[in-house]
Amino acid sequence: MIERTYTSEITEAMDGETVSVAGHVHELRDLGGLVFVIVRDRDGLIQGVFKEDREPELFEQAEELGAEDVVRVTGEVTESGQAPGGVELVPEELEVIDEADAPLPLEISKDVDADLSTRLDHRGVDLRQPEVMAVFTLKSKLMDAMEEWFQNEGYVDVETPLISKGGAEGGAELFPVVYYEQEAFLSQSPQLYKQILMASGFDKIYEVGTAFRAEDFATSRHVSEISMFDVELSYIEDHHDVMDVQEESLRYALRAVADEAERELDELGVDLTVPEEDFPRITFDEALDILEAQFGHFPEDPTDLDTKGERLLGQHFEEQGHPAFFVVGYPGEKFYYMQDVEGDDIASRKFDLIYKGQELSSGGQRQHDVDVMKEVMAENDVPEENFEFYLEGLSYGTPPHGGYGLGIDRLVQKVCDLDNIKEAILFPRDPTRLTP
Amino acid sequence: MIERTYTSEITEAMDGETVSVAGHVHELRDLGGLVFVIVRDRDGLIQGVFKEDREPELFEQAEELGAEDVVRVTGEVTESGQAPGGVELVPEELEVIDEADAPLPLEISKDVDADLSTRLDHRGVDLRQPEVMAVFTLKSKLMDAMEEWFQNEGYVDVETPLISKGGAEGGAELFPVVYYEQEAFLSQSPQLYKQILMASGFDKIYEVGTAFRAEDFATSRHVSEISMFDVELSYIEDHHDVMDVQEESLRYALRAVADEAERELDELGVDLTVPEEDFPRITFDEALDILEAQFGHFPEDPTDLDTKGERLLGQHFEEQGHPAFFVVGYPGEKFYYMQDVEGDDIASRKFDLIYKGQELSSGGQRQHDVDVMKEVMAENDVPEENFEFYLEGLSYGTPPHGGYGLGIDRLVQKVCDLDNIKEAILFPRDPTRLTP
Repeated sequence: MIERTYTSEITEAMDGETVSVAGHVHELRDLGGLVFVIVRDRDGLIQGVFKEDREPELFEQAEELGAEDVVRVTGEVTESGQAPGGVELVPEELEVIDEADAPLPLEISKDVDADLSTRLDHRGVDLRQPEVMAVFTLKSKLMDAMEEWFQNEGYVDVETPLISKGGAEGGAELFPVVYYEQEAFLSQSPQLYKQILMASGFDKIYEVGTAFRAEDFATSRHVSEISMFDVELSYIEDHHDVMDVQEESLRYALRAVADEAERELDELGVDLTVPEEDFPRITFDEALDILEAQFGHFPEDPTDLDTKGERLLGQHFEEQGHPAFFVVGYPGEKFYYMQDVEGDDIASRKFDLIYKGQELSSGGQRQHDVDVMKEVMAENDVPEENFEFYLEGLSYGTPPHGGYGLGIDRLVQKVCDLDNIKEAILFPRDPTRLTP
Repeated sequence: MIERTYTSEITEAMDGETVSVAGHVHELRDLGGLVFVIVRDRDGLIQGVFKEDREPELFEQAEELGAEDVVRVTGEVTESGQAPGGVELVPEELEVIDEADAPLPLEISKDVDADLSTRLDHRGVDLRQPEVMAVFTLKSKLMDAMEEWFQNEGYVDVETPLISKGGAEGGAELFPVVYYEQEAFLSQSPQLYKQILMASGFDKIYEVGTAFRAEDFATSRHVSEISMFDVELSYIEDHHDVMDVQEESLRYALRAVADEAERELDELGVDLTVPEEDFPRITFDEALDILEAQFGHFPEDPTDLDTKGERLLGQHFEEQGHPAFFVVGYPGEKFYYMQDVEGDDIASRKFDLIYKGQELSSGGQRQHDVDVMKEVMAENDVPEENFEFYLEGLSYGTPPHGGYGLGIDRLVQKVCDLDNIKEAILFPRDPTRLTP
């Protein structure tokens, strides 16, 4: 490896030591006889101070630099009240490793607000902005912690296929794939496979995967390719066991972000509250009551919450110190694979998690009785032959089970307070965006 | 949660305690007046002993059970020399949670060798076989350890898109997707995106992702959808830095399997050797010399190793105590994105890792000079316009970098000594298999 020290490792205590830093030229300030070269690596910035009278040859080299050139600066760490971070480098050597083209398609060091579409067109350059990169180093820490919780609890990390014959919820929002001579589609959800694995006895699983949604909408909430964190567990009493898992794992992951991503949160200007108290669990009817009483709002579809309803409920609970809460017991049931228990005090065992005013995940207890499932499929005109493998999978003894799918990008969007879900995805896909 | 104890937690020291176990009925042995009910959960088996004269009602219930019914047996832990694991349950309660259909499409408890195609047709049932499930609990542990190594080393966990405009290596093996009104393809490799992220300054990244290969071959080595572990790192001196990372991370992951997946290795009958010594790094020419001198073998394509060559070299090094080794310096260079350094002592900076006689990954130092890349693309008739986003991504200052993509399924196949790569995938996809 090329020898270097990360900017985050250089402290005032290293005063007098010689180090090498490597990174992009973030900013150049030429004050005549004095050039400040600010070098950026993944963790931060440091400035090299090139003086004409002190190091004339290096100074000349520094004057030739361009923004975003890749350089390695070797020099003596020197305390400086003026420098960002309290230290600067008095240069001894300057290597230009790779020259950048000019001009840049986007400004990086200045606070110029390019519109999102332009930023995404030049995403490779856009990602160099420290507050943009911070989203993704935070995302990495968040997801690693989330996985860690499930590993500690003995969950098996699985991978289910992305190309399949049919979808869980019909064909409208599916992307067709030309699969040799057959008709196939991209996966919208791993749910059917997760359930088969429960029947197989995998007991507790999670999957970090991709889901595809052919939704031709141009909103700040829609993308065609999303990252999902899917969970399924067996031998539950009911959906509350599933909510317990979701609640504890989310709390653990958010705690890890608060502890281990302080730099990123600072960069993003986010003051993250870890929801330490129990997440409220309200029924759908209670949700409607709150919306009516507090906000005079009535969702258009009386069997589901609308975006505005989620937002208002989010506001209501956030004011009470609860950034996250569950809504359970939706009336009716669209999906044949959800448990629907007669005489239950709630209408169904489906739940949604709402975090900072937006639905983050849906889940519930699943139907594990294949006979009931077949009845519900017939009632809803769902052709059984599309789901033969699924019905077979559950026919040979299936424990009671449930699970959920969490939208990772949406979670990151909410944690980082981003306006658009696309900002939480490295290279997002939408109806008009296939590149970069 | 339904209260229960995992079979793996029940030891002889618990003699006299009452526990509940929950799982599938793995086997029933009716000896007349005595029924052994062997219950299987994810971790193992335990037998309940139902005696007509001791517990007549429970005995009657037990006689009604069928294979793979889901049950919960509550009873007293009792030491028994005859029982597998040294303990059995004297039942106090038997709950049938879900009845299985009969007959089963595959035998589970008996050593019947169904052919692989039949097993995969009924994969949900096939996965219940302890030695089949062991592959996937081992795979989970292996991959978690692999990720852990990279997390400990400060790598950022990233996700790159699976749907894109073009592919890295041309269109022949790509699956087309109907993407709204546009032509698109499924990703064959995240390499171009990984490189853009290096240019952006992400420094060190890894991705656990999916790659799609439209290869219409029916072999034990080909599948259409594979899991990849991709790595990319910046500020390397050369490809040896990349090999160092691959070597250390693989050793770490294999050590974790040896330590934490003993039960699975036993179940699979595998004696895993962790390659503690340095992996040999031989040049392509040295590889040819060994093949000629030791085996009289000449690969058909004089610029690449064939399957037989890999196998023979694997045998050669395995005999010397090296299950893993690198081949570096392939002559010529097919790919424009590899570094090709004049006057180097090796022909190129590409390498392959061969493990137990099979190529597990390819990698190398990448070309980071866009001008050289454009020349090579022109020489090889690669149309630049397909790669505009890539060339732009690398134009604004790119550190020297390299990386590799490791085939996860192939690694698991080799670790578990499986004949066919499909056995290392939960629900494999091939030209004729789209379901389950």
